Amino acid sequence: MSNLDGDSPKIHVETPPVAPSAPSEGHLAPASHGGIGGILRRWKREDLIKRGSLGLRGVALLFSLISFFIMASNKHGDWREFDKYEEYRYLLAIAILSSLYTGAQAFRLLQELSTAKQLLQPRMAAMIDFFGDQIIAYLLISSASSAIPITNRMREGADNIFTDSSAAAISMSIFAFLCLAVSALISGYKLSTQPYI
Amino acid sequence: MSNLDGDSPKIHVETPPVAPSAPSEGHLAPASHGGIGGILRRWKREDLIKRGSLGLRGVALLFSLISFFIMASNKHGDWREFDKYEEYRYLLAIAILSSLYTGAQAFRLLQELSTAKQLLQPRMAAMIDFFGDQIIAYLLISSASSAIPITNRMREGADNIFTDSSAAAISMSIFAFLCLAVSALISGYKLSTQPYI
Repeated sequence: MSNLDGDSPKIHVETPPVAPSAPSEGHLAPASHGGIGGILRRWKREDLIKRGSLGLRGVALLFSLISFFIMASNKHGDWREFDKYEEYRYLLAIAILSSLYTGAQAFRLLQELSTAKQLLQPRMAAMIDFFGDQIIAYLLISSASSAIPITNRMREGADNIFTDSSAAAISMSIFAFLCLAVSALISGYKLSTQPYI
Repeated sequence: MSNLDGDSPKIHVETPPVAPSAPSEGHLAPASHGGIGGILRRWKREDLIKRGSLGLRGVALLFSLISFFIMASNKHGDWREFDKYEEYRYLLAIAILSSLYTGAQAFRLLQELSTAKQLLQPRMAAMIDFFGDQIIAYLLISSASSAIPITNRMREGADNIFTDSSAAAISMSIFAFLCLAVSALISGYKLSTQPYI
């Protein structure tokens, strides 16, 4: 539509004195505009944090699943079977655990983002997030560290598809650890914004 | 002194209406008594947190030092020398690093508690605390995990002073990890109480 009538410029002139008044957004201003702006900003920030944790957990889920699949299919007969070594069994177990945890968390966050409804109490969810991320991150770095020395020793002797697959699974577990370590930091921030803690 | 004069009961009568008024300690009360009480409570809590982190780091320092001494003296000739295995060298290196870090932190906290003066900017100190604790905790669990499988395998074959010392050093590293993991939680709480984060 073109500006043929004089009404729409009138509306544009009326709004500016309210909208760009930056000092009215402080705590001292009793105006409802500043409060709504603050709430909207907080919602936007919380939404960004939620999307960030969802992304990090999605990537961690991907890496855990790849680690799980590579290690589970790492059976090539004779001594080249992953289940003959406790380190590789540990790595596999933690990769499965991490896949389940990050999958459940990503599903929950996706549900909350799409329906805008909280599945758990906010404080409970923040606690589960923080402790869960921390514990899975510790388990992932522990399993990767335990599998590295034996793989190193095997590769000194022979370099074949078995040792290469093990190295790939270890790398994927380390990437998943990095994602969850960052996610634990974000969860710690979210926990600290909960009231009464 | 005995109550021979009538002045001191008068003072006692005057004070009760101010002191036990619990609702005046809220944010809405403009009275100076509530504000001072709140500040004192906050100081007391901060002091308790500071003592708690000092204690945890002192214990972590002790465990790291024990792990370091046990592993460094673990040389019994032939194949029973710790420096022939990369896992034990890694464990020793991280035990030294953890001793240095927790020692420096304990020294700083002790200094601050005795002189009531901050050596670093509060926000900077909170950041260093949190990231330092996290990183050293990850390194400790990683080094302990990497040393466990080879020790297990050695103990299946022979159970002697070398394997026993290795197991003791690993346990001490794990205890140090537990202390630092809890300390990282407390540091995360301290970081979250810093303004503008």
